[in-house]
Amino acid sequence: MDDAMETGNLAPYQERPRIFPNMRSKPSTPLIFRVLMRMNVRLLFVLLFLGFGAIFYIGASTSPTIVFVFSICIISFIISIYLTNWVLGKDEGPPEMVQISDAIRDGAEGFFKTQYGSISKMALLLAMMIFGIYMFRSTTPQQESSGIGRLTSASITVFSFLLGAVCSGMAGYVGMWVSVRANVRVSSAARRSAREALQIAVRAGGFSALVVVGMAVIGVAILYAIFYVWLGVDSPGSMKVTDLPLLLVGYGFGASFVALFAQLGGGIYTKAADVGADLVGKVEQGIPEDDPRNPAVIADLVGDNVGDCAARGADLFESIAAEIISAMILGGTMAQRCKIEDPSGFILFPLVIHSFDLIISSVGIFSIRGTRDPGVIGVTEDPMMILQKGYSVTIILAVVTFGLSTRWMLYTEQAPSAWLNFALCGLVGIMTAYIFVWITQYYTDYKYEPVRKLALSSTTGHGTNIIAGISLGLESTALPVLVISVSIVLAFWLGQTSGLVDEAGNPTGGLFGTAVATMGMLSTAAYVLTMDMFGPIADNAGGIVEMSQQPESVREITDVLDAAGNTTKATTKGFAIGSAALASFLLFSAYMDEVASFAHTPFTQVDIAIPEVFVGGLLGSMLIFLFSAWACAAVGRTAQEVVNEVRRQFIERPGIMDFKDKPDYGRCVAIVASASLREMIKPGALAIISPVFVGVLFRILGYYTGHPLLGAKVVAAMLMFATVSGILMALFLNTSGGAWDNAKKYIETGALGGKGSDSHKAAITGDTVGDPFKDTAGPSLHVLIKMLATITLVMAPVFL
Amino acid sequence: MDDAMETGNLAPYQERPRIFPNMRSKPSTPLIFRVLMRMNVRLLFVLLFLGFGAIFYIGASTSPTIVFVFSICIISFIISIYLTNWVLGKDEGPPEMVQISDAIRDGAEGFFKTQYGSISKMALLLAMMIFGIYMFRSTTPQQESSGIGRLTSASITVFSFLLGAVCSGMAGYVGMWVSVRANVRVSSAARRSAREALQIAVRAGGFSALVVVGMAVIGVAILYAIFYVWLGVDSPGSMKVTDLPLLLVGYGFGASFVALFAQLGGGIYTKAADVGADLVGKVEQGIPEDDPRNPAVIADLVGDNVGDCAARGADLFESIAAEIISAMILGGTMAQRCKIEDPSGFILFPLVIHSFDLIISSVGIFSIRGTRDPGVIGVTEDPMMILQKGYSVTIILAVVTFGLSTRWMLYTEQAPSAWLNFALCGLVGIMTAYIFVWITQYYTDYKYEPVRKLALSSTTGHGTNIIAGISLGLESTALPVLVISVSIVLAFWLGQTSGLVDEAGNPTGGLFGTAVATMGMLSTAAYVLTMDMFGPIADNAGGIVEMSQQPESVREITDVLDAAGNTTKATTKGFAIGSAALASFLLFSAYMDEVASFAHTPFTQVDIAIPEVFVGGLLGSMLIFLFSAWACAAVGRTAQEVVNEVRRQFIERPGIMDFKDKPDYGRCVAIVASASLREMIKPGALAIISPVFVGVLFRILGYYTGHPLLGAKVVAAMLMFATVSGILMALFLNTSGGAWDNAKKYIETGALGGKGSDSHKAAITGDTVGDPFKDTAGPSLHVLIKMLATITLVMAPVFL
Repeated sequence: MDDAMETGNLAPYQERPRIFPNMRSKPSTPLIFRVLMRMNVRLLFVLLFLGFGAIFYIGASTSPTIVFVFSICIISFIISIYLTNWVLGKDEGPPEMVQISDAIRDGAEGFFKTQYGSISKMALLLAMMIFGIYMFRSTTPQQESSGIGRLTSASITVFSFLLGAVCSGMAGYVGMWVSVRANVRVSSAARRSAREALQIAVRAGGFSALVVVGMAVIGVAILYAIFYVWLGVDSPGSMKVTDLPLLLVGYGFGASFVALFAQLGGGIYTKAADVGADLVGKVEQGIPEDDPRNPAVIADLVGDNVGDCAARGADLFESIAAEIISAMILGGTMAQRCKIEDPSGFILFPLVIHSFDLIISSVGIFSIRGTRDPGVIGVTEDPMMILQKGYSVTIILAVVTFGLSTRWMLYTEQAPSAWLNFALCGLVGIMTAYIFVWITQYYTDYKYEPVRKLALSSTTGHGTNIIAGISLGLESTALPVLVISVSIVLAFWLGQTSGLVDEAGNPTGGLFGTAVATMGMLSTAAYVLTMDMFGPIADNAGGIVEMSQQPESVREITDVLDAAGNTTKATTKGFAIGSAALASFLLFSAYMDEVASFAHTPFTQVDIAIPEVFVGGLLGSMLIFLFSAWACAAVGRTAQEVVNEVRRQFIERPGIMDFKDKPDYGRCVAIVASASLREMIKPGALAIISPVFVGVLFRILGYYTGHPLLGAKVVAAMLMFATVSGILMALFLNTSGGAWDNAKKYIETGALGGKGSDSHKAAITGDTVGDPFKDTAGPSLHVLIKMLATITLVMAPVFL
Repeated sequence: MDDAMETGNLAPYQERPRIFPNMRSKPSTPLIFRVLMRMNVRLLFVLLFLGFGAIFYIGASTSPTIVFVFSICIISFIISIYLTNWVLGKDEGPPEMVQISDAIRDGAEGFFKTQYGSISKMALLLAMMIFGIYMFRSTTPQQESSGIGRLTSASITVFSFLLGAVCSGMAGYVGMWVSVRANVRVSSAARRSAREALQIAVRAGGFSALVVVGMAVIGVAILYAIFYVWLGVDSPGSMKVTDLPLLLVGYGFGASFVALFAQLGGGIYTKAADVGADLVGKVEQGIPEDDPRNPAVIADLVGDNVGDCAARGADLFESIAAEIISAMILGGTMAQRCKIEDPSGFILFPLVIHSFDLIISSVGIFSIRGTRDPGVIGVTEDPMMILQKGYSVTIILAVVTFGLSTRWMLYTEQAPSAWLNFALCGLVGIMTAYIFVWITQYYTDYKYEPVRKLALSSTTGHGTNIIAGISLGLESTALPVLVISVSIVLAFWLGQTSGLVDEAGNPTGGLFGTAVATMGMLSTAAYVLTMDMFGPIADNAGGIVEMSQQPESVREITDVLDAAGNTTKATTKGFAIGSAALASFLLFSAYMDEVASFAHTPFTQVDIAIPEVFVGGLLGSMLIFLFSAWACAAVGRTAQEVVNEVRRQFIERPGIMDFKDKPDYGRCVAIVASASLREMIKPGALAIISPVFVGVLFRILGYYTGHPLLGAKVVAAMLMFATVSGILMALFLNTSGGAWDNAKKYIETGALGGKGSDSHKAAITGDTVGDPFKDTAGPSLHVLIKMLATITLVMAPVFL
């Protein structure tokens, strides 16, 4: 390394072992799917029928609400099967498209297999560690009184963890599975009509959104029902139903564990390929985006699928799972404090809200009708408008169903008007989501002032463009924080004044109010996820159109769809970070409840005036900075490898530029895949190890200096400071990245000199910097925040 | 604006009103200096003698320690007069140098005058507001019992505030005054010998360092003595000496108020000029740094003086003042709790430590001997080594004097070995400072891996360079945070185990232990400030040498001095942020003490599990992001104005490039000056208004929802989160900026393609981005953190 630096030359290209398997292998399918596919269809149906029967039986012995939730989830799975059949029924277009699409699919599925192989090994290792910890930990008085021993408790946690991990993996898989199949169909449809192309992309996105949300809901519901029946909850001498939700935290942790590595690996993959392809292709050689001459173009298109589709699926799955569980815990705690006779309404409320989410989002998806003007090729309407119309339909339905659900589930004799307050909390959440989407659009859409100013700063060079982009990103944190602050305070206040009081007459509904607001925010999650999934599918379709050299009119259609997809992707991130902020605040409260029940002492305060606790906060914020550093650096390093490879191919095969020689796409795919698998380990390990390490260290310190609970307090401060810094950092990274991307697009429309001008070059530099911000570090931070909250919950026993 | 964007062209250059006065005016001097200069010399001496006599008299009636402190300060002023006479006695070189130096001096003094004119108006306005607030606030039981009415209390606070503001202004002025005179003498000496040039720069820096530190110390000492005598402290029925330090907080606030605007205005000035000059000169026209053909070069050189010298002087002045006052408050509180018979040792300890700082730093400065090899022109030794040797001398002396001072001041019968523990705390602080300096060097010096990797990333383009720099900066926060964490915990523990206990037998020395560690960290402040001031003087000298077109051998000498100056500047920032972190933690404790005494209830906890308090934290962190955004954006905007002006001059006067036509330096100076005065207002106002606004808002909210002290708690959380985020953000900004700068310098040594290569261009982009990071936003954050801590202390009454 030093030698290369001294001489000013890079070392010559070295043949490196292709750790990653050949990209051109036949499509690989996970074992579970292969087993299922080989089975006799009738047998499969019988098994399915029996399985569902058993689940319904267990559900029925738990609560009618659970049966309702199961039914809705199964209906939504049926809808999603209809959607996928509809999408797969579309034609795949001419052979040149199919060929490209096959290469993308092979790359994506191959990477997915290897990536999830590594993740599952780590998950198994962690599961064993958790089992060990739970076997040696103390039990709570509640557990002792209800006869749950260490083995039961360890098994429950590990089982939930593994189920969460598997479900999260499946959520990622279906997201990618449909997107690598829909992309070519969208490209093909774009030759006929813009509307049809849009509809295919939306329905493909809708399929995976329904599966992801449905799986999150049914997973929690099944676990709840099984534990309810197994542990004989609410029968005399056994566990109370209000303590049950705390047993589900393993599910959330499993989901966030897998999501973290999925997002890191996928994010590094997609952006390293993108940056590497752009730096040589666009900047040095001056060929357009997705040009077939670029050796890294297939890797770039594969990246959209593994980074955006698979990872975002896992991310939203995890958001919903974590939010449901934390709201159930808080609902249970509150119901217990208020001595509500039937607390199940408060506990099962989140499941009902998300069941309705499945229904209303389906309506939203189906409201986007196809083929108003069949036969007309060309862009006649703004796809963003159509998507927004569907969103409006969904939001209006969400307000209605939210009101109905609160009346149904949260009505109690003790406080007859409490449900109305909680309905208003839900409205606060829905409004927050809506405002978040608007703010993100304001800062990232070139219709508005900020991005235009950013574009203008490109006219004075690369440097001013970067400075302006960074200040835009830093500034864009202000409004979302103000909105989140208002909604936390408002929802808490609405909850406090709901009329629910504990035995001593103190109002206790505040935290549950914030929980309900979070649910309101996520009450249209399936539709938002649909819009998000739409983005990478449209992007891929555009790539296939470009690579198969379709006429200009077709490209125009996919370009417009792609631009809409960029906006929806950016807004989903705003949505994801807003809900992560609220969900973390809830999980934090759940953590304090849990520590209190283990430590047999009240634990209601985290006092940052204690030096050690302050240090915990300092370390928590530092964790965010270090994690972001490593995530960005991973992209930078991998992109440099891609740049060197692409440069080498252009030098060694000069025929590529005249279309005489074909670039070796597979080598770029292999380089990116193996590098991103390697690079995801360091930041991921940091995120998992550091809270546990800090907790244990300060527990020991506290033991020797006579501070009980010091470890738990320090971890609490670490969590809170990490959450706050993480929200701000993620907002900064996501927004600046999106703004840079669109400033470049704005210049490409012909403004400020247009394509090829110096301003455009400066804008491309900005876009390159923004790539790892908005698609690697930023989204990984969403997951990290929630992962920290769940890991501290699961690991709480070791801090005590 | 929109039109210009649509058409892709910038609007033609418009004659704008030259708000800023003509730059070519005669040197302007502040009124107070002019009055003094017109007076008869004998009269002046008599007045001075009488003044000092009065001060000594008051000091003598207070405590012998105060007399000691006065004497040391006056000796150090005499030393500084010797130093300045020595520097001014050196020759100014040939007329072409003098001419350039005069232009720089005019620009700097003109800007200083206008800038401090605006600042003093704002300070007066704020003083009136503070007076109003204190006239309507409630008084504490201690104050009532000692007969201090509202008027007295208001007058004391406003008087301290104004004195702090004036002293801070003077600290800034002397820093700039000497640097604009020393720069040309260093250039001239560089024609003779490297050693002599180095010595002049060091002694000029030493002059202002001694004045800055001396003024901070004597200012606090005078206030203490005056209040002591005026209020009849410790006589029966009046105030106790342990309550006295709380009256001094106005001084700290005044100092930080002025420092904030000085740093913002100066930082925007220096970096806008630098970035603007580089973008057109270096990148577009390919002329070297500080080339006389560049119309913005004088503005750039002026910027070094107003941004680096004046602002850093005000910054360190404020650090020391705030640290002394907070340590005095904590010492007083502790002495009172432990019922120590003579608490004055604990209260006056910080003044003694900083008096010793003046002595040992003088020794360090004089240890740098001149002219080992007179007559030899050329670089024979590494200036960094010489500076480091002086630092080692100072540090060794600091350890010795610290030990002596603790034994002298902190020995008490109640805990005979407490002084030893506190001496160890001091050692922790000294070590922390040393490690901080080392870490900063590791991340910013191209001798080490990080900067080399950054330079390597420039070979793959602008984008990868920026990504690598940002991840380097984010990563570099980790080690300093770990070091700060360890020293807080260690110093607190040493303090707790010192044997000092309160009436109930609880150990109480912990916080004072952290205070002592902070003092240890700052115990070599004067020498560190000397090294820091050395940087811009050497930089300016290099500019004058380049502009007056001296032979290569002279330029080589100033280049080496400049490079050493870059490193010392970077390390001082590490030092400043470390001490800011510790000082803020102390001020936070002082704030809690003060709130408790006003609210007549204990206020020992800030519980972040309360939603409103959590929201306060969120807002505090957000404040840091928004402030950084506005500071960077200000530089970006102003730099764009400079770029357009420089481009216009090159187009309108094509003769400039062939040295046939002279550029209009004055216009660039005027543009930068007026823009930076305009741009400093927004971030500055944000920093001052937001904590007050949040405190008042939540006070009202708390009143209506029945939460007593809600405003004070929310502000406390805001302060803590802002401190933590501010430390991390400042570390990130300073380090990434320094690393980019040196990565460019590394390439300029010939590595990776050397000057003019594509890697070099990418590295220049990085350097441009780093400029506002490391010299505007970063250092402004140091000041902001301390300003927030002092403003909350002074404004505490309005939150209650």
